[in-house]
Amino acid sequence: MNLPDFQARFAAALDRALPAASVHPARLHEAMRYAAEGGKRLRALLVYAAGLAAGAQLDHLDAPAVAVELIHAYSLVHDDLPAMDDDDLRRGRATVHKAYDEALAILAGDGLHTLAFEILTQTQFAAPGAGTRLAWVQALASGTGSRGMTGGQVLDLESEGKRLALAELQTLHRLKTGALIESAVQMGLAAGSADMATQAALRQYARALGLGYQIQDDVLDVEGSAASLGKTPGKDDAAEKSTYVRLLGIAGAKASAAEQFQFAQEAIAGLGEPASLLRDLLTRVAQRSA
Amino acid sequence: MNLPDFQARFAAALDRALPAASVHPARLHEAMRYAAEGGKRLRALLVYAAGLAAGAQLDHLDAPAVAVELIHAYSLVHDDLPAMDDDDLRRGRATVHKAYDEALAILAGDGLHTLAFEILTQTQFAAPGAGTRLAWVQALASGTGSRGMTGGQVLDLESEGKRLALAELQTLHRLKTGALIESAVQMGLAAGSADMATQAALRQYARALGLGYQIQDDVLDVEGSAASLGKTPGKDDAAEKSTYVRLLGIAGAKASAAEQFQFAQEAIAGLGEPASLLRDLLTRVAQRSA
Repeated sequence: MNLPDFQARFAAALDRALPAASVHPARLHEAMRYAAEGGKRLRALLVYAAGLAAGAQLDHLDAPAVAVELIHAYSLVHDDLPAMDDDDLRRGRATVHKAYDEALAILAGDGLHTLAFEILTQTQFAAPGAGTRLAWVQALASGTGSRGMTGGQVLDLESEGKRLALAELQTLHRLKTGALIESAVQMGLAAGSADMATQAALRQYARALGLGYQIQDDVLDVEGSAASLGKTPGKDDAAEKSTYVRLLGIAGAKASAAEQFQFAQEAIAGLGEPASLLRDLLTRVAQRSA
Repeated sequence: MNLPDFQARFAAALDRALPAASVHPARLHEAMRYAAEGGKRLRALLVYAAGLAAGAQLDHLDAPAVAVELIHAYSLVHDDLPAMDDDDLRRGRATVHKAYDEALAILAGDGLHTLAFEILTQTQFAAPGAGTRLAWVQALASGTGSRGMTGGQVLDLESEGKRLALAELQTLHRLKTGALIESAVQMGLAAGSADMATQAALRQYARALGLGYQIQDDVLDVEGSAASLGKTPGKDDAAEKSTYVRLLGIAGAKASAAEQFQFAQEAIAGLGEPASLLRDLLTRVAQRSA
C-alpha cells in the first residue's frame, strides 16, 4: 500500500463515520460533510504511518485517523469565521459560513468536534480494547484543547500587529499546528506495541515534521497562489502577523524548514521497513507546493 | 448530604478540572472559567443523583458531573453568540462575547467542549475502570453531538418564524435539552451497577424531567423577569419561536409541565432511599422560578 491507497481507505472510513446528509437535521449533516471534504489528510496519514511503524493492526487505525481529521476540519471551520480569520476560501471552495451561514458553520464545527470523540468509542470501528480507545480520547483531547490547538489559535489572534520573537512564534505554532500532529502520531502509537525507543523516535519525528510544515506554510503564504493553495494567500502579511518569513527572510525560512525535515528523517532512520510510510509522507510534505 | 452539599462538592471538582486562569494562554483560561461559573448545576446534580441511585461510589461521579456541565457551559457560550441567539445576558451577567470578544467566546466554548472529554480520561478523577470511562465518553458524545444537543440547536434556529406542531416542538427539545439531561443520567448509571429495571426507571425519569423542564422554561420566558432569570426574558416571542405556551396557552403549558414532573416522580417511586436525591432534585426543579 502506498499513500493514495491509504487516502482511499481513509475516505471510506470517513464516509462511514459521518451521518448521511439525509439524517435529521439534514442541513447540519450536509454542512458537516461539506466541511470534512478535501484536504491533504496529513494527520490521518500520520496515524496510519505511525501505527504501522508501531506494529498496529491496520483496521485498528481507521477510528483515530478519522477522529483527528474531524478535529482538524472543525478547527478550520471555526478559524475561518468572520470573528476570527474571516476567510472566504478553503480547500479550493467557499468556506462553510459562506456556503451556508455563520450559525450553521459554528454548529457544524461543534458537531464535527463531538463526533471526533464519539467515533473513538464506536464498535463499528475496530480497536485493540477499551484501554486503547481511552488513550486515543486522551491523546486527541490534549492536542485539541486549550493547552493545544485551541490555545494556539488564541495566541495567533493575539499576535496580530505584534512582532513576536522566534521563541514565541515557535510556541504559538507548537500549539496551533504541532499539538494535533503529535496527537496523530500518539494515537497511532497507542494502537501498537512499539518499544520506548521507537516511541521516542516517532515523537521526535512528529515534532520536527510539524514545525517544518508550519515554516513551509509561511513560505507558501508568500509564494503561493489562491489556485494552488486552495485558500487566500498573503493573509499573514495583511493581518500583520509574525511569520517565519518575516523573522528569517524567505531563504532563511526555506533553510529552516529543510533542516526540520532533515531532523524528522534522522529520527526514524533506524526503524527500517515498518517506517516506510513515515518516510514517504515526509518526502511528500517536503516537496509540497500547496 | 443534601443538594447544597453536592453543589459544593461539584464546585470543588470543577475548580480542579479547569486550568488556572494564570495558565498560558491566560485570557483563554480566564474566559473558560468565566463561562463555567454560575448556573443551577442541574446536570451535575443529576449525575450524582442517578449514580447514587445506581449504587455508584461518590468519588466516581465527580468526573462525569464536571464533564456534563462543561458541555452545557460551552453550548450556552456558542448559543449566545451574535450569529445565533445574540444575547447579552446569561447567568445574571454579561455573556462571554460581551465580557471578552466574539473570537474568544468561540474559542472558550471550543476549549470547554474538548476539556469535557479530556476530564473523563484523567486519573486525577477516580473511576471504576477504563470501560466505565469509555462509556462516559460515549454517553456524553451522543447527547452532545449532531443527533443530540447540537442538532437541537439547529432545529431551534430553523424554527424561527415558523409554527411547529407539538410533535415537532417535542423533537426539537428532546434533542436540544433532553439529550444532555439523558446523558447525565446515563453517565451516573454507567458508574454504578443498577439492574435493568432500575436503569429503565431512571431513563424514564430523565426523559420526563427534561421535557417538564423545557415546558417550564417556556413559561418562565413569558412570566419571569431578567433579574429573576439571569437572562433576557421574552426572547422566544421576539424571535417568533414556537413554544409550549404558544401551542398550549399558559395554563395548558403549566399543566403539561406538572404532568411530566408527575411522570418523573412515578418512574422512581419504587426505588426507595437510594433515589432520595433524585426526588429532592425533582422537587427543586418543579418549584423553580428561574
